[in-house]
Amino acid sequence: MTAALSPDLIARFAAIVGAANAVTAPDAIRPYLAERRGAFPGATPLVLRPKSVAEVSAILALADETGTGIVPQGGNTGLVGAQVPDASNREIIVTLDRMNAIRSVDPDNDTITVEAGVCLACVKRAAEKAGRLFPLSLASQETAQIGGNISSNAGGTAVLAYGNTRDLVLGLEVVLAGGEVIDGLRALRKDNSGYDLKHLFIGAEGTLGIVTAATLKLFPIPRGVATAYVGVASPEDALALFHIARSIAGLELTSFEFMPRIALDFCLRHLDGATDPLPAPHPWYVLAEVSSGRSAAAARADIEAILGEGRSAGLVRDDRIAGSAEEAAAIWRLRYSISDVQRPEGVSLKHDVAVPIRDVPAFLEAATAAVRAIVPDCRPVPFGHLGDGNVHFNVSQPVGEAAVFRAAARTITAAIHEVAATFRGSIAAEHGIGQMKRTLLPFVRSGVELATMRKLKAALDPKGIMNPGKIL
Amino acid sequence: MTAALSPDLIARFAAIVGAANAVTAPDAIRPYLAERRGAFPGATPLVLRPKSVAEVSAILALADETGTGIVPQGGNTGLVGAQVPDASNREIIVTLDRMNAIRSVDPDNDTITVEAGVCLACVKRAAEKAGRLFPLSLASQETAQIGGNISSNAGGTAVLAYGNTRDLVLGLEVVLAGGEVIDGLRALRKDNSGYDLKHLFIGAEGTLGIVTAATLKLFPIPRGVATAYVGVASPEDALALFHIARSIAGLELTSFEFMPRIALDFCLRHLDGATDPLPAPHPWYVLAEVSSGRSAAAARADIEAILGEGRSAGLVRDDRIAGSAEEAAAIWRLRYSISDVQRPEGVSLKHDVAVPIRDVPAFLEAATAAVRAIVPDCRPVPFGHLGDGNVHFNVSQPVGEAAVFRAAARTITAAIHEVAATFRGSIAAEHGIGQMKRTLLPFVRSGVELATMRKLKAALDPKGIMNPGKIL
Repeated sequence: MTAALSPDLIARFAAIVGAANAVTAPDAIRPYLAERRGAFPGATPLVLRPKSVAEVSAILALADETGTGIVPQGGNTGLVGAQVPDASNREIIVTLDRMNAIRSVDPDNDTITVEAGVCLACVKRAAEKAGRLFPLSLASQETAQIGGNISSNAGGTAVLAYGNTRDLVLGLEVVLAGGEVIDGLRALRKDNSGYDLKHLFIGAEGTLGIVTAATLKLFPIPRGVATAYVGVASPEDALALFHIARSIAGLELTSFEFMPRIALDFCLRHLDGATDPLPAPHPWYVLAEVSSGRSAAAARADIEAILGEGRSAGLVRDDRIAGSAEEAAAIWRLRYSISDVQRPEGVSLKHDVAVPIRDVPAFLEAATAAVRAIVPDCRPVPFGHLGDGNVHFNVSQPVGEAAVFRAAARTITAAIHEVAATFRGSIAAEHGIGQMKRTLLPFVRSGVELATMRKLKAALDPKGIMNPGKIL
Repeated sequence: MTAALSPDLIARFAAIVGAANAVTAPDAIRPYLAERRGAFPGATPLVLRPKSVAEVSAILALADETGTGIVPQGGNTGLVGAQVPDASNREIIVTLDRMNAIRSVDPDNDTITVEAGVCLACVKRAAEKAGRLFPLSLASQETAQIGGNISSNAGGTAVLAYGNTRDLVLGLEVVLAGGEVIDGLRALRKDNSGYDLKHLFIGAEGTLGIVTAATLKLFPIPRGVATAYVGVASPEDALALFHIARSIAGLELTSFEFMPRIALDFCLRHLDGATDPLPAPHPWYVLAEVSSGRSAAAARADIEAILGEGRSAGLVRDDRIAGSAEEAAAIWRLRYSISDVQRPEGVSLKHDVAVPIRDVPAFLEAATAAVRAIVPDCRPVPFGHLGDGNVHFNVSQPVGEAAVFRAAARTITAAIHEVAATFRGSIAAEHGIGQMKRTLLPFVRSGVELATMRKLKAALDPKGIMNPGKIL
């Protein structure tokens, strides 16, 4: 059990980082508690802002000694409440925001070493300055920090070619529950020297240790990127087009996203300056991107070949290849803004599902039918990463009927999760478990799996001080 | 401690698989003990050949009950003695060779599910039959089994574009030390539902559980592959050419290997039908391969662009692009055969080193100097995966001086490992730790890391029955 936090103990923690970096005033603490869902009200008497791994180590040593619950936090962009404390006022937030150094950039080795508090977009800019690409791409990248990306194994829109965050990490510096430091910042691409410990901490949402720095893979900057917005008749056609795209562009197909017409309607309605890339409406859309090492012309040739085969197969109703970087950005904006433009449309339920790629059309059909059976006029807005099988099956309220919709929220969510389960899918594809999906975990993981997770947790955090109440 | 094996206990184990699948005759057991290095003499009274995960589960339940050491074995191609028992005659080998079913092939989902005993080449052929590529490529692929590849996180020659085995596994079926089964065969590309348990077992060399089946990623078959053999002056030039190749071919650069002239000499001397692809000798060679989704012409254009830039930069002395699949195979044979053609040249010491890619030239220089300081006329034969920083730093004896060389073996190996350490490199890049490198692990892993590994081992295998004496 976590001990109550006496003023004495708070002072001992604060002394580790210095008074200027220990936040105790409620107004100053408030932003650290304000998470995006507004669904996880928490309280804490103290936010610590360490500057070094030594300080993080001292914090955890003291937490271990006193049994104090520690909640690691990055950019506070998490969507499942993993980065905020409970309401007991006995847990301390440790934010990595002052550990924001780029420790080294090594283009000849295709690696970069950064501290956990560096924002994702900052990592990307540092790589670009060195003539390289760090491919992890998320809507929240200006705010999200790389430590948080690692702890949640963030996905994003470039997973198809470059992998999840897990696939981009070569080494980690981690502080364990007792304060010991794993100094694992190795820049090797092959290393089979015992158990690969970094994989424990990637995606563990701060429950097994605090990531303080990482060595990441870099890639060449593609010499050409071609982006196309494609109107299609159905998810089945989108999936068939995906296979054509994969077959032609192979490893150079860097994104393959999909969205329904209603998502574009919401964008046109609520997004300043948004325009329809195509002259007529279509039931569904694909956003495909190819990156070529050789040239912009080669990337364009690939996209044209994909669209050509797609037209011959009757899959492509209309298409537009972005003629400039600005136009590509405008097209991507239509994809990145979908969650935002749902907001003015009222209450929205969000679901982070993954199914095997080939089951995406069947999942969409079944889930849509399931939610319509509960609230007939609700407006499903399913979109996401077709190439990864990851569907953000969001549902907007029926026009003007928030109350009915709110009352049915649990039923709707349960129905969608049940449909996902019939495909042996995930209900936490990208965003993690956090607080939000703890009770769902037993529905997607067996007793043996959960017992094994608990064994790991007990082995690495016997006192249960690392981000209590998250995941398990 | 492992209990002595009574005839009674042997009979109980044998009954699980049936007498026909329980090997007890010494002559029949011998092949299972004969590992490739000939360096790890072991003994066992029993080799079990289960056919199902239920049988493996019963075996481990009984092993747990009786404290019997179990040694999992795949194709017995491992190079560090991880797959053979000690000499106590109290450990039992469990071979997965009868669990050789291809459970399902799903080209529309780009996945294949196979049992652990399927040989790697068989997995590749099954994928090809379905119009897909399983890219893991090793010299031993006709004999190595996929369960062993997973347990050793095999690398191979296609890691550059496709990753290590770890990056190719979507799900695992694993039997734990007590006989419980983790049923993790999910075909999802994104799934952040708690701790990603499969990563514990990948590369754990059978010390945390027995892998019985896996769901693996498949890729499109490239429409064109272009292979070039390139003569270069030095490792520095090879590295510079690598960066050009990466920059042009990007994600489509699928291999970038290197070898010294002496390796080609040994091939020409000892390999039937081997010929020099180039008219004149060169100090070093690069084998580069580009895979294109679009066409053979596109792949060739990439290779030509790489060689063109390489020539302009003064890096390429001569080159040959394979004009056919047969010629490409002949070129690859020169790479795959190097360890084999060292054999007739006498005693050979093998080292499996990785350093950061940019340090490969400096490592080669320092390691070569170090071994020449010990045995001046020894013949270093360093080759490997330049694009991964993985150098197989092999050393052949001086001509006619086996005894001197053998006497200096430990000193030579220690010197090479010391050089690797100065680059914060790995001394077990691909092949794992097994028995062979247990005593080296503390030189490349800190006390905190080793303690954490031991915590994992204790949590998952408290009785120490899973492949005792391996890794830790």
